[in-house]
Amino acid sequence: VSSSPRLTVGVFSHHERSFWVEPLTAALPDHVVVDGSEPHDHDRIDVAVVGNVPTEGLTSYRRLALIQSLWMGVDRFLDHPGVPDHVPIARMVDPGMPRAMAETVVAHVLGLHRLLPFYRAQAATRTWAEHAQPFASDRTVAIMGLGTLGTAAVAALIPFGFRLVGWNRSGAAVTGVEVGDFAWVLGQADIVVNLLPLTPQTTDCFDAAAFALMRPGASFVNLGRGHHVVDDDLLAALDSGHLTHAVLDVFRTEPLPAEHRFWTHPRVTVTPHVAADSDPRSCTEVIAQNVRRVAAGETPAHLIDRQRGY
Amino acid sequence: VSSSPRLTVGVFSHHERSFWVEPLTAALPDHVVVDGSEPHDHDRIDVAVVGNVPTEGLTSYRRLALIQSLWMGVDRFLDHPGVPDHVPIARMVDPGMPRAMAETVVAHVLGLHRLLPFYRAQAATRTWAEHAQPFASDRTVAIMGLGTLGTAAVAALIPFGFRLVGWNRSGAAVTGVEVGDFAWVLGQADIVVNLLPLTPQTTDCFDAAAFALMRPGASFVNLGRGHHVVDDDLLAALDSGHLTHAVLDVFRTEPLPAEHRFWTHPRVTVTPHVAADSDPRSCTEVIAQNVRRVAAGETPAHLIDRQRGY
Repeated sequence: VSSSPRLTVGVFSHHERSFWVEPLTAALPDHVVVDGSEPHDHDRIDVAVVGNVPTEGLTSYRRLALIQSLWMGVDRFLDHPGVPDHVPIARMVDPGMPRAMAETVVAHVLGLHRLLPFYRAQAATRTWAEHAQPFASDRTVAIMGLGTLGTAAVAALIPFGFRLVGWNRSGAAVTGVEVGDFAWVLGQADIVVNLLPLTPQTTDCFDAAAFALMRPGASFVNLGRGHHVVDDDLLAALDSGHLTHAVLDVFRTEPLPAEHRFWTHPRVTVTPHVAADSDPRSCTEVIAQNVRRVAAGETPAHLIDRQRGY
Repeated sequence: VSSSPRLTVGVFSHHERSFWVEPLTAALPDHVVVDGSEPHDHDRIDVAVVGNVPTEGLTSYRRLALIQSLWMGVDRFLDHPGVPDHVPIARMVDPGMPRAMAETVVAHVLGLHRLLPFYRAQAATRTWAEHAQPFASDRTVAIMGLGTLGTAAVAALIPFGFRLVGWNRSGAAVTGVEVGDFAWVLGQADIVVNLLPLTPQTTDCFDAAAFALMRPGASFVNLGRGHHVVDDDLLAALDSGHLTHAVLDVFRTEPLPAEHRFWTHPRVTVTPHVAADSDPRSCTEVIAQNVRRVAAGETPAHLIDRQRGY
C-alpha cells in the first residue's frame, strides 16, 4: 500500500496520445495522466511533462512541483515568459538517447570519411571517378561537447581509429580524446561534430571566426541546436569552398523555412531534427521514476542549473 | 648477403608509377620492378603484380612464376584467355582492406538505419517530417559472405546492437552472427550487405527470387561484385516498393554506363567501386613478401583455389 499522494501528470507534446500519454498511464497506475492538449483543470496538475511549451504557458498551473522535459536540451525553458521561475526543471536523461546520438554521429562521420556526400554529388552528373581515400588514422574528428552524448559518440568512434579531439566547458579529461580549448580543437579537425547544449555562452559560437579556424576542406556536423550557428557565416564558408560539407539536423527556425538556402545548397545535408529523439520505450520509466520521487517528497533526478543553462 | 636470385617484377595497373611502382621499388631493393604499361621484355618478368589484366594477356610471359593480384577479388583471372593456367595466382590479403570495408559497411548500415536516404529524398522536396526510428536492436542486418571482409564488418557492427545474421559457403560459425542458409538469412534481414566473392556459384545470386525472399521494406547494399546482381530484377524490386533502397558500389559494367537507370533511380545510391581499395601503404609489404618467397623458392602466400574460385 503506497502512502504517497495520487498525483496528476499533464503531458504537453505534439505527439498523439499513444506516444506518451498511454505508456505513462500504464507506467503510473497510482497516478493520473492527462493529455495537456485536451481541456483540463490547470490547478490539478502536479507534474508537467513537456516537449513543446504550450502556447498559453505554464504559469497558470499553480500546483506545479516539477517540469519534466521530454528532451535532453532544455534551452526552450530558459527566459521563457510562460515558464514559472520557481518550479524546478528536470532534463530528460534517456538511456536510449546517447546510443541513438552515437549512431547518428558515426553514420555522418563515416559517411564524410568515406566521401559519400562527394560521391553523391558526383553521381548527380553520372560521373565515375575515384578519389584518394585517407585512412581513419589520417583524420581528426572534433567532438564539441563531451557530456553524456559526446562521450557516447567518442566511445562509438574509438574503434575506427580516428584521432579524436574535443572541447567541453570544464576542460575535464575524457579517455581517448585530446581535450583542448575551443579554437585549438577547431583548428585540428577534419570533421567537427557539435553536441553542445545551447546556453547564452554557446549561442552563435559557430560564426565566421570559428569557421575560419577550421582546416580548409573540413566538414561540419550540427547535432546540437540551430542557434549555435550563424547561418550566413556557414553559407559563406561553404560557398567559398573553405568548408566541404555541412550536415545539419537543427536550425534556428524549425521546421526549416522552405525558402532557406540550406534546403538546396549542394554542400548541405538537411535532416529534420531526428539525430536522437526521446523514445517512449526508454523514457517512460525515467519520467515515471521522477513522478514517484515528487509523490514521495524526494528531490527529482536530473534537475537543471538555471544559471548554467543545462 | 642474400643467396636468392634477383627477380624482375612487372606491375600491371592503371595507376601512375608513384602509386605502385615506386613504393615496390623501394620495398624490393634486391629485385627489379618494371612498369608493365611501358615497353619491357616479357621473358624477364618473374612475378606479375596485376590490377587490370593487360589487353594482350599474360600468356607470353614465359618465366612467370606468380600472378599477384592487386585486389582481393580474383574473378577477373578465372577463365580469362590471357591468363596462363599453370601459373599460381595469389589474391591480395591487405591488412588495411578489412578495416576500409568495415568503415564502408558501417557507414551504409547506420545511414540506412537512421533513415538518411529517406530524409535526403524528403529534403529534395523541402519536406520536414519526422519518421519512426527503430532501435538498432529492432533491426536485423545480414552479412552475405563471412570471410575476412565479412567478419571485419561483423566486428564493427556488433557494438551497435543490431541482430546479425549471415551466410557463408561453409556454414562455419562466426561469433555474434546467426549463420543460416541463403534463403533463411535473406528472409530475416532489414538490411542485406553483399560481401561475397564472385564465383560461378554466386553469379546472379541476387535475382528476382532472392529479392522476393527479402522482407518488405528491406534495403540492399552491394559491395561484392556487379555480376552478383541481376540488374533488372533489382530495379523491379525497387520500383514495386518491395525494397526501400539499394546502395551499389559495383556493377556488371564499370564504369557504370551513363544510360543505366541506377544513376538516376531515386532509391539507388551509386558509388564508383570505392568501398575498399587496395592501398599501397598497407599492400606494398604484402606484395614484397610474396616476391621474396618466390625468390627463396618458397610457396607464395594467399594462393587461390581455381576450382573454388577464390
